[in-house]
Amino acid sequence: MSDAAVTTLSEQECWDLLAGEEFGRLATSAAGSVAITPVNYCVRDQKIYFRSAEGSKLVSLVVASSVAFEIDQVRGRDAWSVIGQGEARIVDSMSEQDELSASLHLHPWVDTVKEIFVEVTLDEVSGRRFRLAR
Amino acid sequence: MSDAAVTTLSEQECWDLLAGEEFGRLATSAAGSVAITPVNYCVRDQKIYFRSAEGSKLVSLVVASSVAFEIDQVRGRDAWSVIGQGEARIVDSMSEQDELSASLHLHPWVDTVKEIFVEVTLDEVSGRRFRLAR
Repeated sequence: MSDAAVTTLSEQECWDLLAGEEFGRLATSAAGSVAITPVNYCVRDQKIYFRSAEGSKLVSLVVASSVAFEIDQVRGRDAWSVIGQGEARIVDSMSEQDELSASLHLHPWVDTVKEIFVEVTLDEVSGRRFRLAR
Repeated sequence: MSDAAVTTLSEQECWDLLAGEEFGRLATSAAGSVAITPVNYCVRDQKIYFRSAEGSKLVSLVVASSVAFEIDQVRGRDAWSVIGQGEARIVDSMSEQDELSASLHLHPWVDTVKEIFVEVTLDEVSGRRFRLAR
C-alpha cells in the first residue's frame, strides 16, 4: 500500500504541538525496567517542565536515566504523535523554582504537599501525522 | 490537600479499560536509551497484541528489554490512566500468526507490506482515576 497516509512533522511543528498540549507521558528506565508515567506539563524555551512530589518514585527515576516523552491525539481516523528523547534534571535552585512557580501555569494532577519541578531537555523530537487504516 | 481526588483502580478495572481501548503507548529501553511508540493494539487473554513491520526498529527494541504499556483518557477535569510493565515477544509460529490474523481485529496505523505480531505480557497493571486540580 501507499505510505502517503503518513506525514512527517517538522521540528517546529513538533514544538508547536508540544507547546499546545498540557498532558503527556514520560518514559523512564532503571535497573532494566521501563516505566511510563502520565504527567501534566508545560513548555518554556523548548524545555518540558512538570511537577512531582519530592522523593517520589518518579523523581528518583528521571534522574537515573535518559527519558522519553510523548504526546498524541486521535480524532476519528486522524491522528498525530510527537516523541522526544532526552535527559531530565531536578530544578534545585530556589530562585529558579520560585521563578518557575510564578511564570508557569503548571498544576499537578492532584494537590499534594511538597512538589518540585523537573526539567526535561529533549535532544531530539520527531512527529508524524497519520490517516489511520481501517 | 486531601488525596481524595485520586482513586486506585482494581486489576479487573485496569483490564476492562485495556480491553476497551485500541490505542496505547509502548515504552522500550535499549543501550541506556528510552523510547515511546504509539501503537494500535488489542487484548486477548490478558495479553496485548500489536503489529509492526518486520525488521523495524520497534521490533528490535521490544525483544531487547522489558517494556511498559500505557493508556489514558482525559475528559475535562476527569482523567484515568492504566500502566503496566512486562515483556514482549515476537509471535513467530506461522499457525499462531494465522490464528491471530483471523481472530483479532487488529489493524496497523498505516498499511505496509509485511507485518508481524508482537505479544506483550504484562506482569503487573495498575491504574488511577483522577479529578484534576485546577
